Amino acid sequence: MLHRWAVYSAAMRVLGIDPGYHRCGYAVLDAAGSAQQGAVALAASGAIVTTQKVPLALRLNELAAHLDQLLALWQPQSVAVEEIFFTSNAKTAIGVAQARGVILQRAAAAGVAVAEYTPTMVKSQLTGNGRADKAQVAFMVRQWFSMLEERRLDDELDAIAVGLCHCQRVSLLGVAPVEAPR
Amino acid sequence: MLHRWAVYSAAMRVLGIDPGYHRCGYAVLDAAGSAQQGAVALAASGAIVTTQKVPLALRLNELAAHLDQLLALWQPQSVAVEEIFFTSNAKTAIGVAQARGVILQRAAAAGVAVAEYTPTMVKSQLTGNGRADKAQVAFMVRQWFSMLEERRLDDELDAIAVGLCHCQRVSLLGVAPVEAPR
Repeated sequence: MLHRWAVYSAAMRVLGIDPGYHRCGYAVLDAAGSAQQGAVALAASGAIVTTQKVPLALRLNELAAHLDQLLALWQPQSVAVEEIFFTSNAKTAIGVAQARGVILQRAAAAGVAVAEYTPTMVKSQLTGNGRADKAQVAFMVRQWFSMLEERRLDDELDAIAVGLCHCQRVSLLGVAPVEAPR
Repeated sequence: MLHRWAVYSAAMRVLGIDPGYHRCGYAVLDAAGSAQQGAVALAASGAIVTTQKVPLALRLNELAAHLDQLLALWQPQSVAVEEIFFTSNAKTAIGVAQARGVILQRAAAAGVAVAEYTPTMVKSQLTGNGRADKAQVAFMVRQWFSMLEERRLDDELDAIAVGLCHCQRVSLLGVAPVEAPR
């Protein structure tokens, strides 16, 4: 799935990430000056899968090593990551948050800007409805990249979604959104 | 506060950490063969404080840089970290979890073993009561190290507590507890 639409030189490369310590989706998107359909190319996507039944610290270190490789290989200008929406499953949210911390830190260590989006922002940007369900977001992502029938992991589609959201918003705003201070 | 009880050669050095992205407590403990009172020395303790009003990714990277320094300077055999107890404040728990992920990953990257303890285990180990309050744990820590009157940060005391818990448990068990698989 290399350079599907690479008929222009990329003005901006974004690494979209769907955080997880078991499986972490990623997507490399190349955006031309505008973010019209066809002007954003999916250069690569996939999932980092860490070894089960080893201590969490080692799994997070595996994740970090893979991320470092992706950052070195693709040299993105920015990393786009969803904020964690707290649902009823606190244990899952805490597990994802630990992986997310590693992702943000490795991006910062590589000198790459991080853009954070709430799930509502991503849904709203891609479907026009901040409360759209996962299937609708996945459909819009598949449609955008003309891959309605292709097999893709959920985590991969989520990573493409947040990356695409970033490309579109940067295009609309002209500049990358300033990250909110903590 | 260097080498308060350094009258023996340390058989084991532990870095206790109380995770946080704003303020992260740490403590370096040297344990002799037994973990009797006086046979565990507090070599150093303090808190890593990250810059406010900068993006989270940069704060986590600051935290990682300071941790890397502590790991290089003190060369601990193990890092002891509390597990996150999920309370009503999901936002806080997620913030702490992100910092905790970075801590575990940096320890693993440095090749240092990580021991994880639930808050209940720490309380139970230090006070005999798994439901002891923070003040009781702090009192036991202060008493153990004969520093009842000294000013210490809460985060620092929490880091000393988890480090001391690890020293005592390793001493009781003879070996470091095996980390639970995830």
